[in-house]
Amino acid sequence: MAHPHASLPVAVFDSGVGGLTVLHECLVSLPHEDFTYFGDTARFPYGERSPVALRAFALELGELLLARGAKLLVVACNSATAAALPSLRVALEGRVRVIGVVAPESLLAAGVTRSGEVGLLATPATVASGAYERALATSAPEARLHAVACPELAPLIQAGGEVDDRLVDCVEGYCAPLRAAGVDTVILGCTHYPLVRPLIQRAMGRGVAIVSSGQAIADEVARELRLAGIERKVDRRGSYRFLCSGDPQAFRRVGVRFLQMPLGDVRRVAVAAAPPARAAA
Amino acid sequence: MAHPHASLPVAVFDSGVGGLTVLHECLVSLPHEDFTYFGDTARFPYGERSPVALRAFALELGELLLARGAKLLVVACNSATAAALPSLRVALEGRVRVIGVVAPESLLAAGVTRSGEVGLLATPATVASGAYERALATSAPEARLHAVACPELAPLIQAGGEVDDRLVDCVEGYCAPLRAAGVDTVILGCTHYPLVRPLIQRAMGRGVAIVSSGQAIADEVARELRLAGIERKVDRRGSYRFLCSGDPQAFRRVGVRFLQMPLGDVRRVAVAAAPPARAAA
Repeated sequence: MAHPHASLPVAVFDSGVGGLTVLHECLVSLPHEDFTYFGDTARFPYGERSPVALRAFALELGELLLARGAKLLVVACNSATAAALPSLRVALEGRVRVIGVVAPESLLAAGVTRSGEVGLLATPATVASGAYERALATSAPEARLHAVACPELAPLIQAGGEVDDRLVDCVEGYCAPLRAAGVDTVILGCTHYPLVRPLIQRAMGRGVAIVSSGQAIADEVARELRLAGIERKVDRRGSYRFLCSGDPQAFRRVGVRFLQMPLGDVRRVAVAAAPPARAAA
Repeated sequence: MAHPHASLPVAVFDSGVGGLTVLHECLVSLPHEDFTYFGDTARFPYGERSPVALRAFALELGELLLARGAKLLVVACNSATAAALPSLRVALEGRVRVIGVVAPESLLAAGVTRSGEVGLLATPATVASGAYERALATSAPEARLHAVACPELAPLIQAGGEVDDRLVDCVEGYCAPLRAAGVDTVILGCTHYPLVRPLIQRAMGRGVAIVSSGQAIADEVARELRLAGIERKVDRRGSYRFLCSGDPQAFRRVGVRFLQMPLGDVRRVAVAAAPPARAAA
C-alpha cells in the first residue's frame, strides 16, 4: 500500500519568481508529482533582509505550506537557505524533510569537475555568505572555488525585455575572471541565471559544465521521495499550483518567462506584515 | 599562416526564422567564428513548395551568400535539405562545402540510442519525404525509426504567445505514440521544436535523449572547419549579421524568441519573385 503522504504535493517556496526555474526542472524530471509553489512577492527581495527576519519568514511559510499539505519542502532561494535552513529543519523535524539550494548544487559540481577549479556566479550577498565555499569544502575538499559577485545580473534578468548587448556585456564581464582562472565547471548560484544560460555557455565555451540549482534540486527531490518511499506512481500526469503574497497578476506576468510552462491560476495568500526591505545595494 | 578563407563567415540559410535555433547552437559552440544568416521570409513557408522551386531557391541563395563571402554553407531548413542538398553540392563543388540538416541529427541519434528505438517529431512533409529513415538506415542500420507527423506544432510555436494548455496538449498528443513505442531517443525534425524542448522532455521523461538539429549542425560545422583547416583563432569574439528577403522588422520581432541572443541589424536583400506558396495543409 502506498504511504499515506505519497499523494501530497511537494511544496516549493521562494522570495519571488526566481524559484520558478527550480520548479521548471522539477516539473521536467517529475511529471507525475504534484507541486505547490509559493512566491513571497510582498516581501521581495530577501537579499537585503536580516537573518532574523529571514528565519521568521521561512518558518511562517513552512507552517503555511504544511497546513495546506506537503510531503517535502524545498527552499528555492539562496538568501533563505543561507539564513534559515538549519533552524527550519529543526523546527519541522519529524513533520517534513526540508531541501535547500547550495548543498545539492555543490554536490553536483563536485561530481562534474575534473580539474577541481570550480566557478561561482552569484549575488553579492550569496558570495559574501561563504555558503558555497563551505558546501564545496564538504563535497570536494580538493576543489578550489572562484566566486564572482554579479550585482547587475539578476536585476537585468528580472527587468525582462529583449536579450541585448548590455546583457551580453554584463555576462561576459562576470565570466572573464572565471575564464582567466581556467574553471571547468560553473555553478549558477542564483535562480535567475538559467534564463541567460546560453550567454554564459557562449562566454565560457562549450567544454565548461554549467550547474544550476534547478537540476540539482530536481535530482535531490527525486532521491528524497524515493528514500522515504513517498513517490507517486509514474503513470499519472501531476498538477501544480501557485500562491503568492503580493499581486497575483504581477506574479503571473513576470513568472511565465521563468517557468516556461503554463502558469494557470495564482492565488494571493496573506503573510505577516514586514517593514520594507532596505533598498538593494 | 592561416588559410585565406579562414577569415570569412559561415553562412546559414533557412526559409524564415526557424533556422535561428541552429544559429543559436552554432553561436554557443563557436563564439570565435563569424556568421551570416539569411531568412527567405518573402518566400516562406518552403514546406508547400515543389522540389524544382526549392532547388532554384537554394541555388540562388547559395550564390548570393557566396558572393558576400562564405567559407561554409549551412542549409538550416528541412524542406530545402530534402529537396536541394545534393544538387546544391554539385553546383557549388570546389567552391564551398555544404552542410544540411537531417544527416547530422541522424548520426547524433545513432550514437545516443542504446535500445535502437528512435522517435522522430517533424512536419508532415518531412515525415513523408522519408529523409530521416534513409539517413538513419545509413548511420544505424539496426535502429527502428518511429515517425510522428506534427501538423499543428510549428504553426503554434511560430504564432508565439504564452505557453498554454493547448500547446502542452498538442505536445503530449504527438509524444504519446513515441512513449508507447518505448523510444529512448527523440529527434526534433523541425527547427521550431527546440522552443518547446522542456515540454517534450516532460512528456517523454528525463531518461529519453532529445536530439536537435542545432546541436548536431554545430558539431558538424566545427568538424568541417577543423578538417578543412579554416577555423578562426579561439581568442576572439565572433560577430553575426542577418539578411532576409521579407520585412526586416517582422523578422526581428519573431526572430528574437528563436535566437535568444541579441538580434541587431537586419538587412533586406531582394530575391527572385515566386508565386505564392500553396496554403499550408
